[in-house]
Amino acid sequence: MSDMKDIQGQPDYRRINIKKVGVKNISYPVTVRDKARKTQQTVATFNMYVNLPHQFKGTHMSRFVEILNRFQGEINLKSFHRILEEMKARLQAEAAHLEITFPYFLKKSSGQAQSVGMNEYRCTMHGSLDKTDDLTLEIQVPISPPLPSQTGQGLPRSLGHWGRATIRLRFRHFIWIEDIIQLVEEVTSHDLCWPTSKTCATEYTLSVESITTALGRKLENQPAIAWFSVLVENLSQGYNTFASLEWSANNKMPVS
Amino acid sequence: MSDMKDIQGQPDYRRINIKKVGVKNISYPVTVRDKARKTQQTVATFNMYVNLPHQFKGTHMSRFVEILNRFQGEINLKSFHRILEEMKARLQAEAAHLEITFPYFLKKSSGQAQSVGMNEYRCTMHGSLDKTDDLTLEIQVPISPPLPSQTGQGLPRSLGHWGRATIRLRFRHFIWIEDIIQLVEEVTSHDLCWPTSKTCATEYTLSVESITTALGRKLENQPAIAWFSVLVENLSQGYNTFASLEWSANNKMPVS
Amino acid sequence: MSDMKDIQGQPDYRRINIKKVGVKNISYPVTVRDKARKTQQTVATFNMYVNLPHQFKGTHMSRFVEILNRFQGEINLKSFHRILEEMKARLQAEAAHLEITFPYFLKKSSGQAQSVGMNEYRCTMHGSLDKTDDLTLEIQVPISPPLPSQTGQGLPRSLGHWGRATIRLRFRHFIWIEDIIQLVEEVTSHDLCWPTSKTCATEYTLSVESITTALGRKLENQPAIAWFSVLVENLSQGYNTFASLEWSANNKMPVS
Amino acid sequence: MSDMKDIQGQPDYRRINIKKVGVKNISYPVTVRDKARKTQQTVATFNMYVNLPHQFKGTHMSRFVEILNRFQGEINLKSFHRILEEMKARLQAEAAHLEITFPYFLKKSSGQAQSVGMNEYRCTMHGSLDKTDDLTLEIQVPISPPLPSQTGQGLPRSLGHWGRATIRLRFRHFIWIEDIIQLVEEVTSHDLCWPTSKTCATEYTLSVESITTALGRKLENQPAIAWFSVLVENLSQGYNTFASLEWSANNKMPVS
Repeated sequence: MSDMKDIQGQPDYRRINIKKVGVKNISYPVTVRDKARKTQQTVATFNMYVNLPHQFKGTHMSRFVEILNRFQGEINLKSFHRILEEMKARLQAEAAHLEITFPYFLKKSSGQAQSVGMNEYRCTMHGSLDKTDDLTLEIQVPISPPLPSQTGQGLPRSLGHWGRATIRLRFRHFIWIEDIIQLVEEVTSHDLCWPTSKTCATEYTLSVESITTALGRKLENQPAIAWFSVLVENLSQGYNTFASLEWSANNKMPVS
Repeated sequence: MSDMKDIQGQPDYRRINIKKVGVKNISYPVTVRDKARKTQQTVATFNMYVNLPHQFKGTHMSRFVEILNRFQGEINLKSFHRILEEMKARLQAEAAHLEITFPYFLKKSSGQAQSVGMNEYRCTMHGSLDKTDDLTLEIQVPISPPLPSQTGQGLPRSLGHWGRATIRLRFRHFIWIEDIIQLVEEVTSHDLCWPTSKTCATEYTLSVESITTALGRKLENQPAIAWFSVLVENLSQGYNTFASLEWSANNKMPVS
Repeated sequence: MSDMKDIQGQPDYRRINIKKVGVKNISYPVTVRDKARKTQQTVATFNMYVNLPHQFKGTHMSRFVEILNRFQGEINLKSFHRILEEMKARLQAEAAHLEITFPYFLKKSSGQAQSVGMNEYRCTMHGSLDKTDDLTLEIQVPISPPLPSQTGQGLPRSLGHWGRATIRLRFRHFIWIEDIIQLVEEVTSHDLCWPTSKTCATEYTLSVESITTALGRKLENQPAIAWFSVLVENLSQGYNTFASLEWSANNKMPVS
Repeated sequence: MSDMKDIQGQPDYRRINIKKVGVKNISYPVTVRDKARKTQQTVATFNMYVNLPHQFKGTHMSRFVEILNRFQGEINLKSFHRILEEMKARLQAEAAHLEITFPYFLKKSSGQAQSVGMNEYRCTMHGSLDKTDDLTLEIQVPISPPLPSQTGQGLPRSLGHWGRATIRLRFRHFIWIEDIIQLVEEVTSHDLCWPTSKTCATEYTLSVESITTALGRKLENQPAIAWFSVLVENLSQGYNTFASLEWSANNKMPVS
């Protein structure tokens, strides 16, 4: 049926309105901030989309790409916010959304015997600009059993890939990606009771529930974090087990 | 810190409680209902998880698998609901969630020159049992340009993969997967104006917005559907464009 | 330039000839043989292609699909060979190639505490019909650390995914997929020295090299196998280590 | 059984020797050469492995990573060769192998209306150092139908993703990645007869065979190329069709 017809004769057609439009999976080289090296080069995937005002039939898709190109791949909290503002303004949108996913590389810390020169952590920044501004940062941190002390040649023999922790958070004030990763690895590398370790604190058994709780307890004490969620997944043969929790600084219980 | 300690000395630890636990990515052969052939055999991926009651520290993960095994891969609306009820009961859960994704195969309809003997459609059933019961069905339908009439040998030369429509819906009463696919393909195969077709209705230009709207208009007239969302994605070189909308029978506008 | 021109004026154009043509990634429901249950239903991906005779410019692509449809998804050694013969004949090919990949499901054997009701093994049959006939079968078998005996609720807590063994073999005479999997699991579950096991035979250390060798020694004694290769991969944080070997019954060393 | 036992009592055990060992899927930020910008930053995946001498039981896996780290991600033909030489020397290997895969980004050339600011091309360098040195470069170039001239807002409406050409080649002397991509796109963008184009040269119909041949004819005239293979894939609904050919400067037919 033609658009003319809708507007005239069939009122409830007015309810069929586009809600979101945008572009997805744009691969793009970017520069992100790095605590140790000031910046690092990586490759990101961009999703950019907007909420259209009621009755709006289409949009200038090419403007998403024009906005992206203008930022030359400089990604930080400031530029991230400016991209959202430009999207909202130039596309006359009610709300703008930006998702950027990239591998973030850290030189291996000493004692990570089984890691290679660089550790890779998958990061996602998700921002929305509506009446208010919202930004979440997600970081995936691999979890592997620590190695029993070994003699002999070769790489330390890996006990395989236990799983991963996925931390998502909202900032109260700025915190480095490195510092979040370090908080997580302190828990997963040192506080857990692995069957391979001779001695271990008995209160954490090796389960997705206990690791999720341990990470929650670590993160709730970080003043820079206003909200977080923790997801812990354990790879098993033919399936994963997982546990998750959420925490917000705002609904603190009164401490009697 | 030990669980004993939390319960005694550190009240705000009580706020770090597991929210969801479960198993993911279990691959399992299943039998699903098929309009033409009564049933068809396929392979599904299962996610099963529950919301734990406050303060609940862990769960019997093996029970998820025991419940799954009991159903012998017979998947239909009835068994789907019973699995949710068993999960909620046996795991003492506040809410139970079940997601099943599988390729659904249809014999190619005549005139789909470029499809092989079987067309594959990715389907996902997502159910939640809380105080109330909720079930959504998602179907992905590929969108390809119709072929210009061709002479000569070989398969009709494909113009490639234009993109796909992802339909998600809630039932008012039962509707076959085949019937939903047919509704979508009527729009994407016949109602669109492809550059390759000599003559076409001018009111639909070839855009994600117009196809999304066309699908919304088709689906809103189906009495079996209580709610739906439409997502249309167009593959392009190095990125996708997309548009989406949602519709609910409940918020019908008064027709003046 | 037109084909006419090539054949006449430009001899070295004759050297630009199509070598292979075919179809890839056809998803299709199939029935495969199962030792315990006679047959099992699964979903396979098909690649079908041929070597064209010199100067042959194109082929009837649709014939690949016609041949596939005629077999109604009945996949076994006999039908596999007949599909190859039809491809070679109907496409006037110098050689025909068929690759079928499918998940193969086995009920978990008792004592596989951490596996779910069904274990999944990725299988690939690769056949070529040239002057002679060649068929290889490839099976991927997951390798996971055995679990320390545990008390308490939940699934046995997985130590994660150590890696996998990929066995590829040529038959001297028929052998069941189940029997090959069992041979592999006897080595990976029982003969290895895992850090988590209290006592273990000292001659196998936990390395891709030693597991590859252990599997080679097991398989070389199987009269049904004429040739095999073993690839063992160990997942580690951010990379895999691997080792491989090949063995053929034909080049047996004289035993002095 | 212990290694001692093999060497003594069981001669045919001698035949079970590790053939290859190495590391796979190491993700690493790299700098590659760029014709327009001197260098570009991207992220590569590394596979490094060696052929062990007969009877060699294991290797120092960590040396692969030490060698990789020393090169600081500077990837070019010189460093590539030096990495291979170091691998062969330090691991006492009969042969060394190195595979590097990375997305290579080019600013869109004018007239590529439907591309975003950056086009991405997947490149793989594969080198082996045996008695002799061998290096191949593989480049994947997307193929999309050119767009009919359009009016109105938004991105030019993509006709979707037709498929891709995969070019693999050996150098006679250096040639830029950009120049290979340009050769391919000259054929796929201009020389093809798309149903959407009003006028087109009639000798190339839109088929994987004809595009493969057209690319072969273009590449055989490049003095920098000693050997190449061409693979052209066409995405269709539920499957791909493909054709491939190979060419070598060495087996030139005498031109009568």
